Amino acid sequence: MKNNTVLQLLEGKKLHQDIQISGWVKAYRSNRFIALNDGSTIHNIQCVVDFENTDEQILKQITTGAAIKVEGTLEESQGHGQKYEVVVKHIHILGAANPDEVKKTILQPKKHSLEKLREQAHLRVRTNTFGAVMRLRSQLSFAVHEYFRKNGFFYVNTPIITGSDAEGAGEMFKVTNYDLNNVPKNEEGRVDYKEDFFGKETNLTVSGQLEAETYALGLGKVYTFGPTFRAENSNTSRHLAEFWMIEPEVAFCDLDGNMDLAEDFIKYVLQYIVDHCQDDLEFLENRLLQEEKSKPEKDRSPMKLREKLDFVLANNFKRVSYTEAIDILKKSKPNKKKKFNYIIEEWGADLQSEHERYLVEKHFKCPVILFDYPADIKAFYMRLNEDEKTVRAMDILFPGIGEIVGGSQREERYDVLQSKMKELNIDQEELSWYLDTRKFGTCVHSGFGLGFERLVLFATGMTNIRDVIPYPRTPQNADF
Amino acid sequence: MKNNTVLQLLEGKKLHQDIQISGWVKAYRSNRFIALNDGSTIHNIQCVVDFENTDEQILKQITTGAAIKVEGTLEESQGHGQKYEVVVKHIHILGAANPDEVKKTILQPKKHSLEKLREQAHLRVRTNTFGAVMRLRSQLSFAVHEYFRKNGFFYVNTPIITGSDAEGAGEMFKVTNYDLNNVPKNEEGRVDYKEDFFGKETNLTVSGQLEAETYALGLGKVYTFGPTFRAENSNTSRHLAEFWMIEPEVAFCDLDGNMDLAEDFIKYVLQYIVDHCQDDLEFLENRLLQEEKSKPEKDRSPMKLREKLDFVLANNFKRVSYTEAIDILKKSKPNKKKKFNYIIEEWGADLQSEHERYLVEKHFKCPVILFDYPADIKAFYMRLNEDEKTVRAMDILFPGIGEIVGGSQREERYDVLQSKMKELNIDQEELSWYLDTRKFGTCVHSGFGLGFERLVLFATGMTNIRDVIPYPRTPQNADF
Repeated sequence: MKNNTVLQLLEGKKLHQDIQISGWVKAYRSNRFIALNDGSTIHNIQCVVDFENTDEQILKQITTGAAIKVEGTLEESQGHGQKYEVVVKHIHILGAANPDEVKKTILQPKKHSLEKLREQAHLRVRTNTFGAVMRLRSQLSFAVHEYFRKNGFFYVNTPIITGSDAEGAGEMFKVTNYDLNNVPKNEEGRVDYKEDFFGKETNLTVSGQLEAETYALGLGKVYTFGPTFRAENSNTSRHLAEFWMIEPEVAFCDLDGNMDLAEDFIKYVLQYIVDHCQDDLEFLENRLLQEEKSKPEKDRSPMKLREKLDFVLANNFKRVSYTEAIDILKKSKPNKKKKFNYIIEEWGADLQSEHERYLVEKHFKCPVILFDYPADIKAFYMRLNEDEKTVRAMDILFPGIGEIVGGSQREERYDVLQSKMKELNIDQEELSWYLDTRKFGTCVHSGFGLGFERLVLFATGMTNIRDVIPYPRTPQNADF
Repeated sequence: MKNNTVLQLLEGKKLHQDIQISGWVKAYRSNRFIALNDGSTIHNIQCVVDFENTDEQILKQITTGAAIKVEGTLEESQGHGQKYEVVVKHIHILGAANPDEVKKTILQPKKHSLEKLREQAHLRVRTNTFGAVMRLRSQLSFAVHEYFRKNGFFYVNTPIITGSDAEGAGEMFKVTNYDLNNVPKNEEGRVDYKEDFFGKETNLTVSGQLEAETYALGLGKVYTFGPTFRAENSNTSRHLAEFWMIEPEVAFCDLDGNMDLAEDFIKYVLQYIVDHCQDDLEFLENRLLQEEKSKPEKDRSPMKLREKLDFVLANNFKRVSYTEAIDILKKSKPNKKKKFNYIIEEWGADLQSEHERYLVEKHFKCPVILFDYPADIKAFYMRLNEDEKTVRAMDILFPGIGEIVGGSQREERYDVLQSKMKELNIDQEELSWYLDTRKFGTCVHSGFGLGFERLVLFATGMTNIRDVIPYPRTPQNADF
């Protein structure tokens, strides 16, 4: 007989039928009731053991963490707290879990700190919290692919190892096949890359955008969804050295179309989890309420998790130009009272996360799209406005998260792009392929990057980005 | 007005309506008929220009490769070869394409070799062949996610940068943040990793399996779909240094279930493209027929592309034990006549690609699943059979492709796994997290890896793996 999942059994369709289920023991009480979970849902199924007719050797091994296979029938539950339960006929111990050993791990059923769970990241997915987070992450991923497919986008796998560092600005990891104990050098004592695997210096990508542009200018609408890397020494709750990024790129689309796309996309994927993940969301909402009880009232979220999702879904993102934003910030209380670490004095200032949070959380109290930034604080490929001092850039800022999207209309004019690269000393030879796309049928096009883990943070109500990816990579940590 | 896509217009629903479309000129003939493509489909839409009422400066710029925006109405076509056409009211040149420059590129409308196209990989997606291949690749990707979602699997992003090299066997790329010109050394003259980004030696992953196992033993059914890497100096038409791999991992599933899953999965995704990609498949089928005309008859495919797909869909994969396969090979003509480069003499021999191809293409003439391999030629984590000399491994072999899937039931017994690791000198300390999964509720579980590009090769009829990924990474090549 094939295994059913807990999710299937809880639907009740198998009522009064013989069933088989395998999973892990979450709890065992009164020598009678097993709470069994197999990862398919946050909920357990209750299995009722006929302990008088079950071998004592087997009963002894029904302990938290053990893997068991149960055969029985699905029946309506007489007890409280569940609608259905399995009346057990046979129990097979698949893998025991020595209680003395379990006690040393996070599988021990008691409250563990998130820090402790991170140390045992190989076991944390068996906790309720991480089961819920990871199921939700998976559903969000699927929603991403479904959205783009429904809207005529093609998925493109841009390279992870790149020979270009145009965008990296020194924050790229190096990739080599050389023995680091003995790196070949040339006559000037510099690394001789000729014999290295790729015959030149190579790095891990920080963005697939430039390559995605070449594909958008052929397939029309494309997106990437893959790992990207930053060798940035930021040990914060919002940064990872390895994270997943979504980068759509659209031909014949200007900045307004780009903002429409980003907003529509974010709402689609959040609506998807509201529609498909109520059980996990409910659990995570309660988890967050518990966690916040220990915080001072002013640091607690103004809304519950699902209220926050509904709020984002129900409201338009506020679109504000950089220039307007600077005006608001200049006149703001924390600026006048010098409460900001960086006081906004004039147009042209780069916004810090404290400013972004003020705009989103205090001033507008909703997601904000800032656009038309000063050219000087943005990348070379962004389209210059007629004023010649701002570019068609946009960032989307989310409450509690900060920047979740960064995008722009791209500079499609060959001459303007070329002189910008010259100005910034960007090697035109190395990016000749990129310049080529402006030579042969160039057109208005736009795109953005969305850090997937920040979206998962927002959707799960978790507060540390290390807790929404299975095995986080951060400074001094590449465990597992 | 919003752009329509060529795909939308060819559906004909907008007949007699005002429409707008943007795309690239594929051809322009008789000063009148533009074949316009926007990447949404292999087909072009014909745009009929009223050349007498159009500015000559504009007409001049309608050349192959130029990007244009057309406003007009969709009408039934009077000419042959298309059902609908756009009667043009206005044409806007978005980006010209200088014909003298175009001539130097693969955008020039004539036959270019696949080698030449690879050199201009940033432009090749604008050719019919690569447009078709990349759309098909995208559809296959989506089918992968859809299959697993429908079957209750969760998507897991296992780490790309790993601190473990248990599986790598010296074929891993190193990742570092050190300046290679000046690698810090310790007192013994060896690399001192303490100050490196992760504080230890790190590599690019060759497989997410071990981490996926930890997740399957919590969530039940999981899969990865991400980039993996091999620093293997194989300059063949079947190897890439960077490729995408799909790795499902299933708790409570044995080798038979694993074979069922793999076969069902492959058939689902191939059926998906048969259902959704007929136009691109037709084009690619004809391309392959053309390509094969120049080959000697014996080297041509026995079936057309779509026949081959239908054949795989209609037939069961043949399941054959390694022991049976060795018997067949020993008695085979090429073995007796010493035509194989590696003559099969006895049980235990590792199969070479010539042997796999003989089994699939000559003997069985269908996809083959080989299982129960000798333990000595397989990995440490595969489950030992009762005979103590074979393991519960399986490989799926495809005609023209060779190995497309490698999988196994995993060794779930702590003691057996531990002694195997000891025997092979695998560091138990480093993999203590992996061993842990056998300590706390271990269970039968299985999984496999499928090289995505090999599947795309099979589905598109392309013959070089460099031609089914946007920017291939191979020895001495990390361009773009």
